[in-house]
Amino acid sequence: MTTPCVDEQLALLERGTDELLPREELVARLGEGRPLRIKAGFDPTAPDLHLGHTVLLNKMRQFQDFGHEVTFLIGDFTGRIGDPSGRNATRPALDDEQVNANADTYRAQVYKVLDPERTVVRFNSEWFGPMSASDLIRLASRQTLARMLERDDFNRRYSEQRPIALHEFMYPLVQGYDSVALRSDVELGGTDQKFNLLMGRELQKADGLPPQVVLTMPLLEGLDGVQKMSKSLDNYIGVEDPAEDMFGKVMSIPDSIMWRWFDLLSLRGNAAIAALRSGVEAGDNPRDAKVELGLEIVERFHDRAAAERARRAFADRFSRGALPDDLPVVDVVAGVDGRPIANALVDAGLTDSTSDSHRMVKAGAVKIDGEKIEDGRVRLAAGVSVVMQVGKRRVARVTLR
Amino acid sequence: MTTPCVDEQLALLERGTDELLPREELVARLGEGRPLRIKAGFDPTAPDLHLGHTVLLNKMRQFQDFGHEVTFLIGDFTGRIGDPSGRNATRPALDDEQVNANADTYRAQVYKVLDPERTVVRFNSEWFGPMSASDLIRLASRQTLARMLERDDFNRRYSEQRPIALHEFMYPLVQGYDSVALRSDVELGGTDQKFNLLMGRELQKADGLPPQVVLTMPLLEGLDGVQKMSKSLDNYIGVEDPAEDMFGKVMSIPDSIMWRWFDLLSLRGNAAIAALRSGVEAGDNPRDAKVELGLEIVERFHDRAAAERARRAFADRFSRGALPDDLPVVDVVAGVDGRPIANALVDAGLTDSTSDSHRMVKAGAVKIDGEKIEDGRVRLAAGVSVVMQVGKRRVARVTLR
Repeated sequence: MTTPCVDEQLALLERGTDELLPREELVARLGEGRPLRIKAGFDPTAPDLHLGHTVLLNKMRQFQDFGHEVTFLIGDFTGRIGDPSGRNATRPALDDEQVNANADTYRAQVYKVLDPERTVVRFNSEWFGPMSASDLIRLASRQTLARMLERDDFNRRYSEQRPIALHEFMYPLVQGYDSVALRSDVELGGTDQKFNLLMGRELQKADGLPPQVVLTMPLLEGLDGVQKMSKSLDNYIGVEDPAEDMFGKVMSIPDSIMWRWFDLLSLRGNAAIAALRSGVEAGDNPRDAKVELGLEIVERFHDRAAAERARRAFADRFSRGALPDDLPVVDVVAGVDGRPIANALVDAGLTDSTSDSHRMVKAGAVKIDGEKIEDGRVRLAAGVSVVMQVGKRRVARVTLR
Repeated sequence: MTTPCVDEQLALLERGTDELLPREELVARLGEGRPLRIKAGFDPTAPDLHLGHTVLLNKMRQFQDFGHEVTFLIGDFTGRIGDPSGRNATRPALDDEQVNANADTYRAQVYKVLDPERTVVRFNSEWFGPMSASDLIRLASRQTLARMLERDDFNRRYSEQRPIALHEFMYPLVQGYDSVALRSDVELGGTDQKFNLLMGRELQKADGLPPQVVLTMPLLEGLDGVQKMSKSLDNYIGVEDPAEDMFGKVMSIPDSIMWRWFDLLSLRGNAAIAALRSGVEAGDNPRDAKVELGLEIVERFHDRAAAERARRAFADRFSRGALPDDLPVVDVVAGVDGRPIANALVDAGLTDSTSDSHRMVKAGAVKIDGEKIEDGRVRLAAGVSVVMQVGKRRVARVTLR
């Protein structure tokens, strides 16, 4: 693999990032022309990834594609301790069997994105397991309380007088020391990990090592295009979702978020995305770009054939409704409480009044995204974008604001 | 050895204590009739004890005399780490050789007070040496930041925004865990150790052990009777001082502090001290009681013969001056800067004017504590009590306030 020049690497590696600290150090390291050691840490608790988690994996993959070495670090040392204070019931101590089972699940899921040949899976119990209490005390001596209280959650809890158990201060140090052990050149993490990533930088410096570059990725917005993707908000696409669901969900995202998804979820180069984008700006149907994104994502987690099947199934479902290619697009104000379907139909110009709406619903003539509606009082939330139909002829893509 | 009843033990054990927490638990444990496990921790740095340090040793000895088991715990685990933050140059890391040499010095010094037969010397590296980093994290999970910031010095430094290195929070936990390892019934320490002693109590509770009773001893006032005894104030009696110095220094303490010294430094029973005290209140010369204290202390650190020789030498020195038994006693105001001898002589009524004083000094007629004075401008500090003489006849005990 020939290494592309620094500018070319940087253009892709910077895409979609939240912060790159400090940029000039990444430039310098890339300029060394050697494979850099890229680190990203993951919880050893049961993995069950959605697309939001793959933002980081994609960035790791981009580094791999430029010939760098990626370490997928499983933080099993603290996972094996769990929450010894017993305050956090969601953090049980994991044993060997659980750690290994979870690592296998991780591999199965992340190798859909990462190149297994260029990925090293490590466990931080390798160096923390044999570490003595006195070594840990020496490690703790390298940071101060004041520095720890700069971390948002510690600071908030301290000022709200909520308890902070002393071992919690050890965890950022543990994560930071992983960078010393791995001699990482770059550590990737979510925006919320910035403090811990910088801790690695500081501990490397204290150990006389060149400090790692810190690269944070933002949290991905979910299907609604507004809220962060999460299981609890049910606005996510799981990496093990069936191909058709996955494709359909990608197609459902608002156009407004599409380019952001391209930046964070596509492994296409910047030029390819720019070409699609200028096409849309010149009048191409944005739906066609979205289809490209859906195909790429489904192919990644299933395969090309499944992606094609999913696309056809999606097209069939909509052609059964004989939807025109150029649906009118309407914005409707939903507000914080959402908007009842009956009212949204009026707002979108599909019915004449709410009582008209309710009659149509009763007659079984109203569909949303192809599904028959039973109750016109159901509210649609702001951020949702749906196809609303009344009978065969009245139809619009309605986005609730 | 027959165990005396609880009340009798308590009367002696409580003598001179600063705090006993909680008293009723000590009563209950003493009532069990078994030998209690008494713990006191000592720094592994070079010991060089003065009488102030023996206050704690005396209390340990009293427990021993009632048949209890004393553990003299040397905190070498943290001593071997030193100050890893490098901020405290006076805390170098100690190696095996230094720890053992210091332990030998301790034994040589403390066995003058403690009964070697009833003393177990332990090192906390016995249990902390093999401890893993994860065990220490579990230990740290048992306390909160808020609890640690209740300790005076942490609190002060935090509010003054002076740095607190994170490992410093581990040290009270280490000391506290020693009590878990030793299953101590009672821990003794100086007043300044109260927080750490209570930490032992809390960690024992968390481990399902009966929590230790905490007994703190005050800091001993030095020769001036006002300031705490310390090397830097030069108001101390070292346990390795020559017998004559030791005796002479005991004799020099102000009467005001004498009973306090009896309580904290004498191994006599309460009744014996009460008898001496009521004698003095009934008109006995307090000097005779002070001689008894001096003899006891010199005998402890040297032997009976040396104590007797020291007493005779002291008596001779003063009889050379043919001092009357009923010296006039005079208070002189010295202020913060002290009082020149020439002025103090005037104040005490021993000369008529400072120029008279200087003449007498020049003539070699002025002695302080039997020693000829060469320069009348030398200042006497507040808190000192001396015998001032001008010629054979003009003499007074002068206390500088």
